[in-house]
Amino acid sequence: MTTLSSNGYGKHKVRLSKITRYDDRHDFTEISVDVVLKGAFDEAYTKGDNASVLPTDTIKNTVYALAKDHPLESIEQFGLDLAAHYMNRVPHATSASVKVSEKKWTRMVFDGQPHHHAFTGGASEMRTADVLHTRGGVTLKGGLKDLPILKTTGSAFVGFMKDEWTVLPEERDRIMATTLAAEWTFNSHTADFNGAAEAIRTKILNVFANHESESVQHTMHEMGNAALALVPEIDEISMLMPNVHHFMFNLDRFGIENNNDIFAPADEPHGYIEGTITR
Amino acid sequence: MTTLSSNGYGKHKVRLSKITRYDDRHDFTEISVDVVLKGAFDEAYTKGDNASVLPTDTIKNTVYALAKDHPLESIEQFGLDLAAHYMNRVPHATSASVKVSEKKWTRMVFDGQPHHHAFTGGASEMRTADVLHTRGGVTLKGGLKDLPILKTTGSAFVGFMKDEWTVLPEERDRIMATTLAAEWTFNSHTADFNGAAEAIRTKILNVFANHESESVQHTMHEMGNAALALVPEIDEISMLMPNVHHFMFNLDRFGIENNNDIFAPADEPHGYIEGTITR
Amino acid sequence: MTTLSSNGYGKHKVRLSKITRYDDRHDFTEISVDVVLKGAFDEAYTKGDNASVLPTDTIKNTVYALAKDHPLESIEQFGLDLAAHYMNRVPHATSASVKVSEKKWTRMVFDGQPHHHAFTGGASEMRTADVLHTRGGVTLKGGLKDLPILKTTGSAFVGFMKDEWTVLPEERDRIMATTLAAEWTFNSHTADFNGAAEAIRTKILNVFANHESESVQHTMHEMGNAALALVPEIDEISMLMPNVHHFMFNLDRFGIENNNDIFAPADEPHGYIEGTITR
Amino acid sequence: MTTLSSNGYGKHKVRLSKITRYDDRHDFTEISVDVVLKGAFDEAYTKGDNASVLPTDTIKNTVYALAKDHPLESIEQFGLDLAAHYMNRVPHATSASVKVSEKKWTRMVFDGQPHHHAFTGGASEMRTADVLHTRGGVTLKGGLKDLPILKTTGSAFVGFMKDEWTVLPEERDRIMATTLAAEWTFNSHTADFNGAAEAIRTKILNVFANHESESVQHTMHEMGNAALALVPEIDEISMLMPNVHHFMFNLDRFGIENNNDIFAPADEPHGYIEGTITR
Repeated sequence: MTTLSSNGYGKHKVRLSKITRYDDRHDFTEISVDVVLKGAFDEAYTKGDNASVLPTDTIKNTVYALAKDHPLESIEQFGLDLAAHYMNRVPHATSASVKVSEKKWTRMVFDGQPHHHAFTGGASEMRTADVLHTRGGVTLKGGLKDLPILKTTGSAFVGFMKDEWTVLPEERDRIMATTLAAEWTFNSHTADFNGAAEAIRTKILNVFANHESESVQHTMHEMGNAALALVPEIDEISMLMPNVHHFMFNLDRFGIENNNDIFAPADEPHGYIEGTITR
Repeated sequence: MTTLSSNGYGKHKVRLSKITRYDDRHDFTEISVDVVLKGAFDEAYTKGDNASVLPTDTIKNTVYALAKDHPLESIEQFGLDLAAHYMNRVPHATSASVKVSEKKWTRMVFDGQPHHHAFTGGASEMRTADVLHTRGGVTLKGGLKDLPILKTTGSAFVGFMKDEWTVLPEERDRIMATTLAAEWTFNSHTADFNGAAEAIRTKILNVFANHESESVQHTMHEMGNAALALVPEIDEISMLMPNVHHFMFNLDRFGIENNNDIFAPADEPHGYIEGTITR
Repeated sequence: MTTLSSNGYGKHKVRLSKITRYDDRHDFTEISVDVVLKGAFDEAYTKGDNASVLPTDTIKNTVYALAKDHPLESIEQFGLDLAAHYMNRVPHATSASVKVSEKKWTRMVFDGQPHHHAFTGGASEMRTADVLHTRGGVTLKGGLKDLPILKTTGSAFVGFMKDEWTVLPEERDRIMATTLAAEWTFNSHTADFNGAAEAIRTKILNVFANHESESVQHTMHEMGNAALALVPEIDEISMLMPNVHHFMFNLDRFGIENNNDIFAPADEPHGYIEGTITR
Repeated sequence: MTTLSSNGYGKHKVRLSKITRYDDRHDFTEISVDVVLKGAFDEAYTKGDNASVLPTDTIKNTVYALAKDHPLESIEQFGLDLAAHYMNRVPHATSASVKVSEKKWTRMVFDGQPHHHAFTGGASEMRTADVLHTRGGVTLKGGLKDLPILKTTGSAFVGFMKDEWTVLPEERDRIMATTLAAEWTFNSHTADFNGAAEAIRTKILNVFANHESESVQHTMHEMGNAALALVPEIDEISMLMPNVHHFMFNLDRFGIENNNDIFAPADEPHGYIEGTITR
């Protein structure tokens, strides 16, 4: 005797781009959408009866169809609207999860003039929206991810716990490098989502740059507190800040002094530091 | 006023390889380990006081030091032992999560003879172990991931729910392709972990190959049931089976009939299907 | 005054899969094709006149249309036929380059019986074919790439040149690991391409496994010589064998002796060793 | 009887970062270096005699040792100096190839003030330098790569060659998207390399944005001509501009008109267009 204790299905990596044409400029938006529905889909699993299953191909088409008349001004709003649609359309769904990520396309500027319709891309940084719509309510998170940030000083790590396998030297001046992911939970679904994202981003980068850091954890906490203090529309912020190591390269062997200036960066292994700060 | 409502830190992607030398052969094992500790580390965040923080560099060194005398016969056992070590070493940790993944290195065979010390690699498939050690107990999961499987027939998708954006044709004979991830929860921590993994893998591939499938969900359910029936040491199995599409290429436009044999495979978007089956 | 000194265009990553149905089994083939044409396409560049340009969309469609009635028994033959087609179709092309790579799909076996229609995938190793068809003739290369191979002993590196920045210790017993790419040039376009590939693969792996290696270069040379000796239909073989390092982890610091058995594998940096051996 | 008709060895992906401290700011540079030496290294291959082989570990150490006192103001200069060093150090080398790529780290700005020591990263775009130093002379190329650029109008593709497999509609207004790579050959090794790179980048983006394009080829040619006209220190420019497709999503099926504004972007397959323009 077994139970299907959890189920979910949907479509991932639905990629969509849209041109919005104004008199004085074109806007260009590129997003990727992941949709997962949960609910009373058991008979598809247990009996091979698909009557309850709206195809994932339809789930995909829906993203394009709804995007046609949607302003796409914020991915949070598009996520909210998509999730509400799926919940209306599939009455036996108990939840719809919609995650949207947006690529950065930056308008080209020549001689100080923004170009009408040309853009550069290639930033790893993405804006994210995460909507979980249940029959009991809606949770909305905004965020950013994959943003490398680094400072060359203002970062220490001393006074830590030691055991017989601890050889890390205490360090008062080290590179602090991470690839930032942050996600914040809105207490209002009518907030200025883009304004909040921009304000949070600027603030947490500012704290990162200027905080006299005793550890990644220490700085992360300051960043989160500052975001919560600045933006009343959010109640919680989670951050993930892997410690991307730049190891001092051993030049002593060659009779050369490394004045804390020549490093070998490494992607792996990396420190892993996460935290959630709640109002 | 804010609260640090959640925290965690550790080291990710600690890569380790080991040679074990026997008279008649060398064994070679290559793993990657992710460790995350949670607990009373708040003062590192809130005060910049690192006294409670065993450095992530030490967490890394520990993996190598413990691997030296460990047989590494199963990644489940190594994960259990690592997690127990961290919990002993850091009394204020409330949990240690240790995830181990293992690359497949396959002994070379020439003229039917296994080679003494040479191997081929490159399989995307990995074995996984996931240990969550808390002060209340230990949860142990084995698994496999990133295993592409495909069958060219024996798969249908008909009788599904339709709306105005549904154009998917009903299909009685289609390619079924996925990249399988499966994870099972052991009810015993002294089981034959490798034997269980091998038995589950063979069984779920066999069901995948031979099941007359009405949907990915339908086949997944059969696979999970068969694994639970076969291996009494597991109580639950979760599977993730993205539907990797091979789209029939439209040759009609050229006056050529596509007899369901010429396809364009695509990585994105992909269907997303998950399920958990519990004894 | 400028000259368009070189030009080329085509379609890359044309992915195609095909089912071939026999009474007793289905075969399944998945390939990716890159096509580049060169020739008298200058006016597209210099005048914006596209009259000479067969669209890359057509180049793509051609791959699917030709694959329909092609047995696809070898990617070398499909590459030859595709390249010849483009040269016929586009009289002003001076060359057509067609590169085909094939994923490995391995038939599932249960209780010793090959399955009728189910396969596992996920190998990084690919077979490759590279056809350069010019008005003067056709060059055909077969190959394999992305095949990790490793041996735990039988590999030394001593007696090397030293300067003031050389600290590498001489080593008589080290791991030898690489990700093999090999490409061989056929002197016959009616050879048994698959048979040659299989024979070369087995032979060079055998030499890799059994050669008492003084360096990657040394073993590469033996591998190439053995392939040329075995397969008369090839005249030349090129190999690329990056030295993928498994560094002995320093356990001395902890009073633990590393008996050449605990390593930290690293993807970067890596040694780079290439060579071409000609009959 | 075989010949070692070509050989080469070195180190790839030597990653290095450097802090340069000034009174008013820190600069931060991160590069990756690939070195390949060719020459009289045959006996390593044919006899297993390593006397001529400077280890790849030494080649790596050299990058760090030379970077210590090098201003790293341009990767071109660092590449020139590295290559010259290897040619001096290894008298039996006939060539040294040094390729350097540089990540973009952008100084953070708050309230209009550049920060003293904090940076953001994550751009896919890289600057490149490619030095080939032979006993006969030195070829120096600068470049950029992995820069996505896109415009929403000003791009057509009509009047092209057609065959029976051509179904692409003529299009007067389409998205033009590519991931630009460009490489230019300097005729002077004392040029202002960074100034040239900046001038070329701005100019070719400007042409891309403003050119009324009849094809990717057409625009590429204009971009190259403009670069050559602007920067006398370069004699040649090569560009690679894959056509990254944004396909109009078929909304007709749903009774919705797609006003050339809703697209599905796809990474594969992609058009491939290259060209080299010489003064």
